[in-house]
Amino acid sequence: MNKYEGHSQLLLRPRTTQQVSEILQYCYAGRLAVVPQGGNTGLVGGSVPVFDEVILNLGAMNKILNFDEASGILVCEAGCILESLDNYVGSRGYVMPLDLGAKGSCQIGGNVSTNAGGLRLLRYGSLHGNVLGLEVVLADGTVLDLLGTLRKDNTGYDLKQLFIGGEGTLGVVTKVSIITPPKLASTNVAFLACEDYVSCQKTFAQAKLQLGEILSAFEFLDRYALDVVLKHLDGTRDPLPDSKQHFYLLVETTGSNQLHDKEKLDAFLESAIEQGLITDGAVAQDISQAASFWKVREGVAEAMGKGGAVYKYDLSIPLKDLYTLVEDMRSRLKDSATVVGYGHMGDGNLHLNIMAPKYDNELLAQIEPYVYEWTAAAKGSISAEHGLGFMKAKAIHYSKSTAAVQVMEGFKKLLDPRGILNPYKVLPSPSESHVISEAT
Amino acid sequence: MNKYEGHSQLLLRPRTTQQVSEILQYCYAGRLAVVPQGGNTGLVGGSVPVFDEVILNLGAMNKILNFDEASGILVCEAGCILESLDNYVGSRGYVMPLDLGAKGSCQIGGNVSTNAGGLRLLRYGSLHGNVLGLEVVLADGTVLDLLGTLRKDNTGYDLKQLFIGGEGTLGVVTKVSIITPPKLASTNVAFLACEDYVSCQKTFAQAKLQLGEILSAFEFLDRYALDVVLKHLDGTRDPLPDSKQHFYLLVETTGSNQLHDKEKLDAFLESAIEQGLITDGAVAQDISQAASFWKVREGVAEAMGKGGAVYKYDLSIPLKDLYTLVEDMRSRLKDSATVVGYGHMGDGNLHLNIMAPKYDNELLAQIEPYVYEWTAAAKGSISAEHGLGFMKAKAIHYSKSTAAVQVMEGFKKLLDPRGILNPYKVLPSPSESHVISEAT
Repeated sequence: MNKYEGHSQLLLRPRTTQQVSEILQYCYAGRLAVVPQGGNTGLVGGSVPVFDEVILNLGAMNKILNFDEASGILVCEAGCILESLDNYVGSRGYVMPLDLGAKGSCQIGGNVSTNAGGLRLLRYGSLHGNVLGLEVVLADGTVLDLLGTLRKDNTGYDLKQLFIGGEGTLGVVTKVSIITPPKLASTNVAFLACEDYVSCQKTFAQAKLQLGEILSAFEFLDRYALDVVLKHLDGTRDPLPDSKQHFYLLVETTGSNQLHDKEKLDAFLESAIEQGLITDGAVAQDISQAASFWKVREGVAEAMGKGGAVYKYDLSIPLKDLYTLVEDMRSRLKDSATVVGYGHMGDGNLHLNIMAPKYDNELLAQIEPYVYEWTAAAKGSISAEHGLGFMKAKAIHYSKSTAAVQVMEGFKKLLDPRGILNPYKVLPSPSESHVISEAT
Repeated sequence: MNKYEGHSQLLLRPRTTQQVSEILQYCYAGRLAVVPQGGNTGLVGGSVPVFDEVILNLGAMNKILNFDEASGILVCEAGCILESLDNYVGSRGYVMPLDLGAKGSCQIGGNVSTNAGGLRLLRYGSLHGNVLGLEVVLADGTVLDLLGTLRKDNTGYDLKQLFIGGEGTLGVVTKVSIITPPKLASTNVAFLACEDYVSCQKTFAQAKLQLGEILSAFEFLDRYALDVVLKHLDGTRDPLPDSKQHFYLLVETTGSNQLHDKEKLDAFLESAIEQGLITDGAVAQDISQAASFWKVREGVAEAMGKGGAVYKYDLSIPLKDLYTLVEDMRSRLKDSATVVGYGHMGDGNLHLNIMAPKYDNELLAQIEPYVYEWTAAAKGSISAEHGLGFMKAKAIHYSKSTAAVQVMEGFKKLLDPRGILNPYKVLPSPSESHVISEAT
């Protein structure tokens, strides 16, 4: 990510919650702005200091505190790297309920703060369901212990939910309790080619029907994305070299019985071919081939970065209209940029990437606010899984009503009345407005 | 539920959100307290007027507004009855992600407001993950449109989460958008007998391993519960008449392939018997037998009510200690009451029911606060899925820290500064304290 460049003269790396609390007490008293930072892998500038904010980097708080092997409930510090956690629980028969391309450097505290979605959401749901508890330090240094380890807890308002996706503007997440599902023995990955987007949708409906409980990912990329990957990423190969189609799907199944899963997958593929939904397909024969299929899909973001300056949009759009935006943008921009569409089709989540030789304000003016207006008109969301950060704080109105934004401002003011936590992010600008006038 | 008797002189049944808004505007201006009410099936007095509150009954707002057959996303009014919704989506190939004993009369708005758990949580997770959007009317009549229909939407704070489990104290839920999973073709139900509680735990671990992705419910009841059901509920039969064991399990699988599921279930049962985890078991041979097994488990609450006065506790307790509380309570109360334990073992959720000839303050003093202290010491939750309501508002401190309760009070004050919405519920008492003193 080189679109946002930070400015800060001070980076602090606390090792304990107590230290986080003391830092925030100090900053709160002195009205010093603070930007909490995890692995700094976000794409919307959420962890980048805008002016002279103090950087509060959680990377040194990286201890696993507890893992209950009977229930799969993990408690750890916010700075733990996602991949390390997945390895840790993996060797104990469990799997992290989220997975994303940046897993090697992103941190769980950042994942929670941005409500990261990723590749396993289709199967295991969002962090709002999987996070069981949080420890959060508020702007004034108050430590809020919400670190429950229970699947069910209806005692009062579920405060932790506000910090999931709060992007560090309401408090700093210091510890996380999360439920991890059992690791199942059998995984299959298929790479499929479709002639058009309608066939992709029909294939998805068929997969839900025939793969049912074992469907664990349904991803798509267009031909443009595949070409960029093959051109810019070393060691990638076209999984279907004999097919030149417009769309590709990656379908993953995860289950407890290899024989059963294979039967279901074969039946699904046969019927998809018979019905003409897919024109070609390959099933990975071993782990390394499965990894190479995944690399094509996961490598799009990295490959785009190597090809030039990239404008990235992360959108939720109702499935039937999802690809129309890509086509509309392509015809709008003509030859001035390469427009690529890919993403988590199973979640209705499009990653629209626009690559140009360099960042250019004229081009940007062609893209924004058009992309936001288009998405709002389709009743979509201008941020599906990346958050608003610095990039889209001013665009929140495209997805949320004025009354909703006012309530958000009220919460921000309540928890961080001096506005020291991650300023200029999420909400458009400090406002004095209240939701409801104070009782008199 | 006859423990709480309401007092109110006025019951209003609005038909539209606009009417809800007008009622609240009026009540807010006149400082009239309001208790929102759904199906009135709660067990903690959350929907019961304590003094002279106006009852705002949502039952007439019972329209289904939209159902997207491609995605399974349902949008409906708050007064829709859960069972009606399940029938509606069921005939279109989907299933509601929650199911509970009261489904025939409870309403989706009440389910959301109490964050109802129930029988499918093990498989589909909580409402915090499944509810995609809400329309909520705030205390002063402001209509808050958070009625998104997208699986992913990271644009600002996820406000709807606070109203899930808010028990009607922060706003009145008027519309709900919820994702419904595909209805799978194959369901199996087994009823098993275990000699002791340790065997129940081991059977659960084995089920997670061998049934994996098809496990959809893991419920337990003790012998006392079974006896009460057989005695008081007409038409119930002991599923295992030749076994007289201390514990019984109901295990349900749901999958897309009957043959595969049966193979997995048979293998699981064989190994559980071989290992001596279960002493006996029966697999339902048809839908009506499956229903009769479920009736035994689901009928405990109703049967208890027919047997006398019942004190009901809904607790989350780490699995290994879950039944110890039942035994401790039994030896504490001796012959003065019948102590019964059952619940959603897969979620670590115990329903502790204590039946006596009549409600009695001396007996109650033996039970409370002992039950809350015991649960707090075990790091459990004093309300797993029922909420705090009127019954446990004062007991919130057993499960939540003072700092957390103060933040809750801050949110309550922000959204309902005059305290008209469902007073005396959830939070112990109005407090003027603020989390963080206002910036000066």
